[in-house]
Amino acid sequence: MKFNFHVPTAVRFGIGVVDGLGKTVAPYGKKALLVYGGSSIKRNGVYDAVTKSLKEAGIEWFELPGVEPNPHMTTVDKGWQICKENGVDFIVAAGGGSSVDCAKGVAAATAYDCSVVTLMDNHTPVTKALPLFVVLTLAATGSEMDSGGVITDTVKKIKGGVFGPALAPTVSFLDPSYTYTVPKRQTAAGTADIYTHTIENYFDTAKDTYFVDGVAESILKTCIKYGPIAIADPENEEARSNLMWASPWAINGLIGCGRNEGWSLHGMQHPIGAWYDITHGEGLAILMPHWMRRVLNDDTLFKFVQYGVNVFGIDPNLDPYDIANKAIECTEDFLFNKLEIPRTLSEIGVDDKHFDEMATDAAAGLAHGFVPLTKEDVIEIYKKAL
Amino acid sequence: MKFNFHVPTAVRFGIGVVDGLGKTVAPYGKKALLVYGGSSIKRNGVYDAVTKSLKEAGIEWFELPGVEPNPHMTTVDKGWQICKENGVDFIVAAGGGSSVDCAKGVAAATAYDCSVVTLMDNHTPVTKALPLFVVLTLAATGSEMDSGGVITDTVKKIKGGVFGPALAPTVSFLDPSYTYTVPKRQTAAGTADIYTHTIENYFDTAKDTYFVDGVAESILKTCIKYGPIAIADPENEEARSNLMWASPWAINGLIGCGRNEGWSLHGMQHPIGAWYDITHGEGLAILMPHWMRRVLNDDTLFKFVQYGVNVFGIDPNLDPYDIANKAIECTEDFLFNKLEIPRTLSEIGVDDKHFDEMATDAAAGLAHGFVPLTKEDVIEIYKKAL
Repeated sequence: MKFNFHVPTAVRFGIGVVDGLGKTVAPYGKKALLVYGGSSIKRNGVYDAVTKSLKEAGIEWFELPGVEPNPHMTTVDKGWQICKENGVDFIVAAGGGSSVDCAKGVAAATAYDCSVVTLMDNHTPVTKALPLFVVLTLAATGSEMDSGGVITDTVKKIKGGVFGPALAPTVSFLDPSYTYTVPKRQTAAGTADIYTHTIENYFDTAKDTYFVDGVAESILKTCIKYGPIAIADPENEEARSNLMWASPWAINGLIGCGRNEGWSLHGMQHPIGAWYDITHGEGLAILMPHWMRRVLNDDTLFKFVQYGVNVFGIDPNLDPYDIANKAIECTEDFLFNKLEIPRTLSEIGVDDKHFDEMATDAAAGLAHGFVPLTKEDVIEIYKKAL
Repeated sequence: MKFNFHVPTAVRFGIGVVDGLGKTVAPYGKKALLVYGGSSIKRNGVYDAVTKSLKEAGIEWFELPGVEPNPHMTTVDKGWQICKENGVDFIVAAGGGSSVDCAKGVAAATAYDCSVVTLMDNHTPVTKALPLFVVLTLAATGSEMDSGGVITDTVKKIKGGVFGPALAPTVSFLDPSYTYTVPKRQTAAGTADIYTHTIENYFDTAKDTYFVDGVAESILKTCIKYGPIAIADPENEEARSNLMWASPWAINGLIGCGRNEGWSLHGMQHPIGAWYDITHGEGLAILMPHWMRRVLNDDTLFKFVQYGVNVFGIDPNLDPYDIANKAIECTEDFLFNKLEIPRTLSEIGVDDKHFDEMATDAAAGLAHGFVPLTKEDVIEIYKKAL
């Protein structure tokens, strides 16, 4: 077991914590860029709470609204120009993972004074960036407590990203009541996103990761318990709180400690997201059971058995392959019946026209997964998921 | 659920990581204070590895050896004087929790330029300190990744401490092979210390902490699985690694999120540690089952049931009080049979001469525990543990 772990982000968690935003950011300068997506934060009071707190602290702010669900490089570069022209000191992202990821791109592009595409193409580890503060409105990507951001290159049709130690947010404000107005479908997709991040870590060939396996199982069980409650009862504080706090731990490094980190589902989903404007968590959920059936074999069986017994409470005395197959069925039941996520790619508007390009792109990164996958494997999984 | 979370410490984990110590500390200055306890680090090669790496990076160092198992204020102040006289830039602690806690005291006393007793008496939150780097040799206190240090005031006979954001180590080096030479009895006590930190968080009146309860259960199960293995097979890398990585998560704030944090066992053990030079983890383990039986009631039953079912796999269909009592018996079996920790205070040299003073001291902090305890309760628990 060998790894580095570092999560410098400070978290303020609880209802009302955004009142302290202005006071927290004040030492970092006088000019902010406020990054957000659609108009929902204006309807649900988040925009008012954020700007009230900035105003009270005497912070001047510029705005980058309209961040896409899969943020475009052009939007990031627009933010860079605003920061450059106005001498912005720090960034406040208000929204879900897309706003946070876009803000990370802007923070890095401004510090390096170049288009985010240059950083993405060079795979430069980002070691300088404007300070970033996050006001989260969706439990999903975990970007509020990690050091990466996913950006879509709309010209090359690929999802790339910016990664590096300087991109961890300085402080993230997590108010679970800010997620009460997240619609049912986005709540489900966000929960599936958390679940998938955990699965990507958990299904690994390392066999000595008992402690962090237990943490991963706790995140999975949190999704299974509270995802359906948050959908049925959107203002359930306990459900929203547990999902919101479990979410960053699925991706901030803790449960990845000592593993090989294949991230095969993301490898297959990102090319779909680059060609079709789908919801990330839905794409991941649709692929998951097909990927699981493809990678189940004598070598990986142990992990499926552990998953089935510890997460779904399946009888450990059954035949191991029975446990594994039951666990995959339980996964499907959770994703498609309990969370009511669409079951096929067709239902979310994806067709088979670009399977070849997408699979070529995906396969480039799948040689070191839980089970290595070829382009043909990926096409087969896409076809089954169609 | 309302809390702040911030663990800025970077961790380098794995066999051989200390080779990178010199390079890591070099940007922080040219002069170090090396803090350590007895001669064991000279026998097992840790001292040589640390000083070799410092030498290669051109770091000059001074030494504060001989830190006591429960570090004394006078030792801390000796370190402060060395730092002051020699213009020390940063501190390297090599050892277990005592060396790290002592180093935290020195780091704070030097920055404030006053005796550590002043900081302890004033309960000053420490917001400035010399940078601290840790080379850990024992999985126990979690001090390598938290913001507090426990120091004994040998005059007032109390265990106090220094606490504050500046005390989180900058980088902690966790090499599990450095714990291979920890003797059986210290391995057991360290495991009991990790277990107790987790119990202090887990046994809490909050009922909405499902996610972090799962993390806590993973730590407890890690202690139960690997404590006995590490004792029987000291060079078992998997056991030592899991214990070493679970340890800081028992106390760095994650599993305390959203709780009231009573810490009653520490409240009762610290006065014993101030009067008698006992091993912290042993004192905690001896008190634990007596405390559990005292606080088990209709209001707290739910937590004992959860503990019994999730940690020890007790049949959830049994009568709840049967589950609770079985869980306490399983706890005793783990601590006293599996870890072979002494079962009574008498066995570790504690008598009843100071129960009154100790209980008065303890009771001052026990009004807000899982179940509030009075001085009489504490004396009763001490007597049962005798």
